[in-house]
Amino acid sequence: MTRTRVLTGITTSGTPHLGNYAGAIRPALEASRDPSVESFYFLADYHALIKCQEPARVQRSTLEIAASWLAAGLDPSKVWFYRQSDIPEIPELTWLLTCVAGKGILNRAHAYKAAVDRNREAGEDDDAGVSAGLFMYPVLMAADILIFNADKVPVGRDQIQHIEMARDFGQRFNHLYGEHFTLPEVTIAENVATLPGLDGRKMSKSYDNVIPLFAPREQLKKLIYSIVTDSRALGEPKDADASNVFQLYQAFSTPEQAASMRAAFEAGIGWGEAKQALFERIDAEISPMREKYEALIAKPAEIEAILRDGAARLRATYATPLLATLREAVGLRDLSKASVAATKVEERPAPAMFKQYREADGRFYFKLVQGDRVLLQSAGFDAPRDAGQRVAALKQAGRLDDESLLADGVSREDVDAALAAMAEAAA
Amino acid sequence: MTRTRVLTGITTSGTPHLGNYAGAIRPALEASRDPSVESFYFLADYHALIKCQEPARVQRSTLEIAASWLAAGLDPSKVWFYRQSDIPEIPELTWLLTCVAGKGILNRAHAYKAAVDRNREAGEDDDAGVSAGLFMYPVLMAADILIFNADKVPVGRDQIQHIEMARDFGQRFNHLYGEHFTLPEVTIAENVATLPGLDGRKMSKSYDNVIPLFAPREQLKKLIYSIVTDSRALGEPKDADASNVFQLYQAFSTPEQAASMRAAFEAGIGWGEAKQALFERIDAEISPMREKYEALIAKPAEIEAILRDGAARLRATYATPLLATLREAVGLRDLSKASVAATKVEERPAPAMFKQYREADGRFYFKLVQGDRVLLQSAGFDAPRDAGQRVAALKQAGRLDDESLLADGVSREDVDAALAAMAEAAA
Repeated sequence: MTRTRVLTGITTSGTPHLGNYAGAIRPALEASRDPSVESFYFLADYHALIKCQEPARVQRSTLEIAASWLAAGLDPSKVWFYRQSDIPEIPELTWLLTCVAGKGILNRAHAYKAAVDRNREAGEDDDAGVSAGLFMYPVLMAADILIFNADKVPVGRDQIQHIEMARDFGQRFNHLYGEHFTLPEVTIAENVATLPGLDGRKMSKSYDNVIPLFAPREQLKKLIYSIVTDSRALGEPKDADASNVFQLYQAFSTPEQAASMRAAFEAGIGWGEAKQALFERIDAEISPMREKYEALIAKPAEIEAILRDGAARLRATYATPLLATLREAVGLRDLSKASVAATKVEERPAPAMFKQYREADGRFYFKLVQGDRVLLQSAGFDAPRDAGQRVAALKQAGRLDDESLLADGVSREDVDAALAAMAEAAA
Repeated sequence: MTRTRVLTGITTSGTPHLGNYAGAIRPALEASRDPSVESFYFLADYHALIKCQEPARVQRSTLEIAASWLAAGLDPSKVWFYRQSDIPEIPELTWLLTCVAGKGILNRAHAYKAAVDRNREAGEDDDAGVSAGLFMYPVLMAADILIFNADKVPVGRDQIQHIEMARDFGQRFNHLYGEHFTLPEVTIAENVATLPGLDGRKMSKSYDNVIPLFAPREQLKKLIYSIVTDSRALGEPKDADASNVFQLYQAFSTPEQAASMRAAFEAGIGWGEAKQALFERIDAEISPMREKYEALIAKPAEIEAILRDGAARLRATYATPLLATLREAVGLRDLSKASVAATKVEERPAPAMFKQYREADGRFYFKLVQGDRVLLQSAGFDAPRDAGQRVAALKQAGRLDDESLLADGVSREDVDAALAAMAEAAA
């Protein structure tokens, strides 16, 4: 059975907090238990470099995130768990994709456009303070996904565009060089818990309102007691749905526990008591993991070994063989095989294939090629769909219907033979 | 003695012609004989992918260019000779530099701007048909240079800007992460022979007017006889300086031979005789190399082995150790060393260093850091030079002259100790 490949990256520029746990770690690990899924989790440290230029923080964050996922139950013998920067095939594929990616598409990336908008508001140049890393981020992300031919990438709504770009770059590569990439699909994590932070806004590092996932017990308690509430006194009924305390409680409790807390809110539970209950509930879920986390983080060499082992196996299984095929496809080839390949072509004609592509004039073309020989060459179409329909019609007919498509020096007979062979192979 | 590192890249998207030989191969090989120079020659196949999406052509061109340089006298035991795509540290460094490169600088690259201008003239979107590869080319080129800390890069005037960009990216990296890169200097090849092609314009693949360097003898003769001339008959004096035939002759002859041909032009030599003399002159220089070329290209496995050996030695000598240092610098670190490093810092304070950088607000800042601790933090300067002068003044003083620079929780004593230690180390 071919399992569905699901890929998740975590940028290594912060310390995991309760919001990351409830919104990402816990649901991802639950999903990974599905036997029809092959899960890929990676520490996106090349991505971290775009925003974070504090080396010690990148290192510390990598360690903390790895230890957190392991403590939360990730089993590196059952899922792929690795560090992005241990896979040199990723930056190499990034360059191959850079060569086929349209710059115009990158101009439209949300994160880049937001930076430009901020500059315009501030009366600065569009690109003031914008690094090429921020601009090229979607190409690196496409390489992360395509190097493992991931089928699905669960992301928030703000990331949909990046997956669409990965599909676009993969498709362009496929059109130019043959079918090598699976085009990834977005999975929107619709019902992901978004936790409120200490101040009631979404829990986020950028609001400085987070509760660290593995804060020591006393600190966890102190932070929970500092959650902002309204000033209703003990005995006054409280609105559970409007309360940060209740929302946090709900994220860490069974439906029964939540229902009983809701009743307590209506009955006028005091904030102190509610916070104590919340602390106990969270601590009950977290403390077994916290012990594992502390044991893990005390032995960073073991985490390093787990990550290296994951990357080594993953490279051998997928990344290295795929990159070898891609290098061959684009022409980064063993020179000693140049003449051998030429001989083979003479002995038996290579299978013909259609290639669709866009030219510098912005229009869409196709050609039929056999080995290095061009058999058919189209004129430009306004839309890729038009070119695609024309190709589909030729494939279906299995013979040439318009001699003006013939490339120089190619006979109708050659093309008909190639089209017939293609139709036969496809049948 | 430290030799000067001189680096030359050759894009692998064409067949070498006489213009490449006289303008690049011959002078580069002559320069490499200088014992004070350590020469780096590489086949820039990642660059070729930007423009050339014909895999067989990239492969063939790589083979032909490698064979041409070897036939022309390149000795792979005396200079570094390698293929760019055999050095995985290059795409990885490209990403590290991408994260520090300013996008605004890339917007101003000549090649990219020329593409935008063409689109505007054609009434297209600025970036229609422009790949991210064309846009990011200067960052890849910076990685080519900086991975070997090349001192000098001989280029034509059109390439000066790229070297300036490599300096800029290297400098930004140095400011953020400490001094790792030598900033390369441009060497302008002023008196490089630019040969006329068959039609009198500069010999260039894009004008389709080239004489392939290793065309078979008969084809060479035929091509030389097809050079465009004026219609002066035998006996009429001819203007040597205005003649393509003479210019080509001069590029392949001693000053004495050229002077005697100039006299023959004045005396009214016929075009047929002049072309025959030119053919014999070129053939005399080329034919010993042509034999070597043909022998080499018949054994592509040997060329492949030479290139792989060059890359393997070069990686072990320079690229792999440097990249390991750079990874450490940016925070892509062995996690097992996290705690060890922390212990060491406590035992003996790390040396303090100034870092200069640009913030998202577009202004220039410096800070004094010691390990992970920030000692001083400047306000923003309008120009990098102002920040640099302030740093220089502090270094020279060896003590703090303005307490408003102190970072939170840092005492004046700590800073004075750090500055004094720096001054001592520099003395």
